[in-house]
Amino acid sequence: MDNRPIGFLDSGVGGLTVVRELMRQLPHEEIVYIGDSARAPYGPRPAEQIREYTWQLVDFLLTKDVKMIVIACNTATAVAWEEIKEKLDIPVLGVVLPGSSAAIKTTSTDRIGVIATPMTVRSDIYRQKIVDLAPQMQVETLACPKFVPLVESNQMTSSVAKKVVYESLSPLVGQVDTLILGCTHYPLLRSIIQNVMGSEVKLIDSGAETIRDVSVLLNYFQLNHSRDTVITADHHFYATAGVAGFKEIAESWLGQDLNVEHVRL
Amino acid sequence: MDNRPIGFLDSGVGGLTVVRELMRQLPHEEIVYIGDSARAPYGPRPAEQIREYTWQLVDFLLTKDVKMIVIACNTATAVAWEEIKEKLDIPVLGVVLPGSSAAIKTTSTDRIGVIATPMTVRSDIYRQKIVDLAPQMQVETLACPKFVPLVESNQMTSSVAKKVVYESLSPLVGQVDTLILGCTHYPLLRSIIQNVMGSEVKLIDSGAETIRDVSVLLNYFQLNHSRDTVITADHHFYATAGVAGFKEIAESWLGQDLNVEHVRL
Repeated sequence: MDNRPIGFLDSGVGGLTVVRELMRQLPHEEIVYIGDSARAPYGPRPAEQIREYTWQLVDFLLTKDVKMIVIACNTATAVAWEEIKEKLDIPVLGVVLPGSSAAIKTTSTDRIGVIATPMTVRSDIYRQKIVDLAPQMQVETLACPKFVPLVESNQMTSSVAKKVVYESLSPLVGQVDTLILGCTHYPLLRSIIQNVMGSEVKLIDSGAETIRDVSVLLNYFQLNHSRDTVITADHHFYATAGVAGFKEIAESWLGQDLNVEHVRL
Repeated sequence: MDNRPIGFLDSGVGGLTVVRELMRQLPHEEIVYIGDSARAPYGPRPAEQIREYTWQLVDFLLTKDVKMIVIACNTATAVAWEEIKEKLDIPVLGVVLPGSSAAIKTTSTDRIGVIATPMTVRSDIYRQKIVDLAPQMQVETLACPKFVPLVESNQMTSSVAKKVVYESLSPLVGQVDTLILGCTHYPLLRSIIQNVMGSEVKLIDSGAETIRDVSVLLNYFQLNHSRDTVITADHHFYATAGVAGFKEIAESWLGQDLNVEHVRL
């Protein structure tokens, strides 16, 4: 039993898709979230810089006495998960393995697509993890550098978004039966992506898959928050820029009023 | 990636219900199983003796170079899980927490029943874990000392079994909407139990729930067996008594020919 909060970090608002799933599956857990909107997107940046930024976010969360950290960003997971997990004495989860594992279980043709940021695609982490687990899998990866800026600027339902998604995904249409949304921002574009790929293609939300793992690790490490009958989950959200924009997206996505503060790292 | 086997221990054949679920969910993993049939049932024994026996089984599994241990026995979990998990440098899973957690998610009336061995009931572990997680839950526990001997003597479908289950469970009928099978032997009596409790009561198989956790921990600790296209899972089963009886129950339950060896601890 441990009533401290769970820490989430992301380059911006994408990690909120993981938070929404946590709120649904584990409503008694408390959240501290930091989104590095000032420096989003992380995807086009060099690995060393992503590593440095990610550690800054981790260090910030540690000042909030979190009991577990979820790196709710595929790019940061690709670059720094193993190192951070190794160095901290609290559990640290990334979003890549849960997504890979779910895709292997889901595909029936052994053809898996992965859409992600340029850095995640360059790291080749999804292909490596998938092929390690299941060598017979064919993995098609595709960088979609325009998706995160669309989401961070709250243009998810615009006609521009539809056009960008349509053009970006065309190399994958008809090629795979399972598609990993390998960036936590992408579930915010989910209905457009599903529409472009076709209704028979199964979309894997790497962040949502991760929450199943959070639940199991809370059990394993005996870190669950007690489920008192009166729920007063006291969440805290921090953004490194544009609190108003972050708050608008976050409240719309999470369906509740939120306390969002600006923080300088 | 780690191609070593996963170790399972039980007082006898009960842990096979957990193994069956592993074979279904994670068919590429290799298994070493030890059932202490010579000294089953563990349920009526004093805690110190159960602790000693459980450590002997753990030490045996360690000689087989296992990468993870599943204590596929509720009684042994109740007595020794935390201690064993603490002392070993490989992951060690018990079956109590996954079952408790699943029951809390399943009940809609907050009334959960637990049937288990006398030792597990005396330890009060299920009630404690459930109420820790969700204080509003009402937990009714019931010791069923006659169930394990029925299963170990392969009388699961006999008319004696039906009579024993009917008489044993009568205090719980109509009292709960969710029933934890808090002993890994009990899924072998599942259809009779369901029949006695009524079709609307949800049965929670603590062992099957545990395999979901095994899967997540294999990911988290990066211990998955590679899924080569040619599957040659080379399982090993050991029993401390009655290889013929163990083999008959195991092959019938798991639906395949098995290599069962006798071992003296």
